[in-house]
Amino acid sequence: MMERNIALVLEYDGTQYSGWQIQENAITVQGCVQKALRALTGEEISVNGCSRTDAGVHAAGYVLNFVTQSTVPAEKFALALNAFLPEDITALTSYEVAADFHARFCAKKKTYRYLFYPASRPSALLSKRAWHVRTTDFDDVEEGVWLDAAGKMNLAAQSFIGTHDFSAFRAVGSHVTTTVRTIFDAKVYLLPNDFVTGRRVFCFEVTGDGFLYNMVRIMTGTLKDVMTGKVEPARIAGILASGRRKEAGVTAPPEGLYLYRVEY
Amino acid sequence: MMERNIALVLEYDGTQYSGWQIQENAITVQGCVQKALRALTGEEISVNGCSRTDAGVHAAGYVLNFVTQSTVPAEKFALALNAFLPEDITALTSYEVAADFHARFCAKKKTYRYLFYPASRPSALLSKRAWHVRTTDFDDVEEGVWLDAAGKMNLAAQSFIGTHDFSAFRAVGSHVTTTVRTIFDAKVYLLPNDFVTGRRVFCFEVTGDGFLYNMVRIMTGTLKDVMTGKVEPARIAGILASGRRKEAGVTAPPEGLYLYRVEY
Repeated sequence: MMERNIALVLEYDGTQYSGWQIQENAITVQGCVQKALRALTGEEISVNGCSRTDAGVHAAGYVLNFVTQSTVPAEKFALALNAFLPEDITALTSYEVAADFHARFCAKKKTYRYLFYPASRPSALLSKRAWHVRTTDFDDVEEGVWLDAAGKMNLAAQSFIGTHDFSAFRAVGSHVTTTVRTIFDAKVYLLPNDFVTGRRVFCFEVTGDGFLYNMVRIMTGTLKDVMTGKVEPARIAGILASGRRKEAGVTAPPEGLYLYRVEY
Repeated sequence: MMERNIALVLEYDGTQYSGWQIQENAITVQGCVQKALRALTGEEISVNGCSRTDAGVHAAGYVLNFVTQSTVPAEKFALALNAFLPEDITALTSYEVAADFHARFCAKKKTYRYLFYPASRPSALLSKRAWHVRTTDFDDVEEGVWLDAAGKMNLAAQSFIGTHDFSAFRAVGSHVTTTVRTIFDAKVYLLPNDFVTGRRVFCFEVTGDGFLYNMVRIMTGTLKDVMTGKVEPARIAGILASGRRKEAGVTAPPEGLYLYRVEY
């Protein structure tokens, strides 16, 4: 039987899932995808995901790969799988890849987006989609206040760019062989007013060769302190240099985080 | 004890609720709001909602009123109630109104928005926020095709404007004293690409003095037939004149519908 290696791109709403990685007694995205693959192909397929996203984290362009003996044309897997996937997981595209392609180990760049908005009142419709930072600082203020905050956060985000030891931006207790990562781009900008809620939302967008556990969420928690004026943009370099987790901000909650794109 | 009549504006994500109206053995938006009011004021308060939204329907500007003996300042009710509301229901603003104000009977104009998108692949992140119309007609097409569809639907929507008997756009089996309603404005437009998913989404926005049961959803189902070319824009007038439900399109699902604004 001929075996092919297939790459599949997913979009998912992580709200209802205990993260990506398959576990006993928990509903995970990987578990749902493997169940759908079994239903479609009759094979017991174990997929390689590009990242272990946490519970509540979303994805707009998650990549995985799997080896199959199925005769389904490579490009048709996405559409066919949607018939077996729940509506909060969508297969967007699929294509054949080289036998040695691995969604995690071959990834060259990953881009995350984190959405957050400062307001005294939370937004019900954004509640699982963005982080509500409770503050009255942005209630009924002029456009300039928003642009100023975006500018300061963007300046702070620039300090992440480059090759650094990101120990200060890593969850305490996580273990890795190296805490050095390269960030290719990092920026903060204000989105157009949300169409349904009218809310103003900030986006932190960061591209790197890899990320430590909770790294994007701790970066966002630190940028939040820049937004509220607690931390000056110029201090980010010092926090990085310190290597101490307690110098950085809180870990932003999972609901604002999106794995946006993976490049190979 | 002094009694005051308070108006409250809500935003809610209707996904997890069996609609607005309080029921035994079901979780409803009204039930949650009354429970929060009881927790805040100690009073058993029955609220008057502006509309009985169905299960899964959302609101960006739902208005209700209630009479209370509480001494909480009128403007503070919204913020105080949020402490007792689940995160998918947000109180946006509150203010004192005249004793004879009734959120439903005093409403002069209601505006609904309905979001829908044509695609062969559904979007997981839009799954509870917009109607996925399954079609390959809009996959990889040029901008002109989208604009042309929006233009035709907008033309069709114009036919709803005015005072008409909307019997053809009413759920079979629903009973009312009159099926005549006045539509002040109706339009269809293309939204900017969704920031997270990159999807193109259409919005049908309609303002009227009132709506029959499922009226906006049947209007949308009919506009969908204009989008796919099954129905010409000029036929809407004939469907209206026929008064026959079967001449109109399907009832679009609840998840794309938002009660956007109520005017008094």
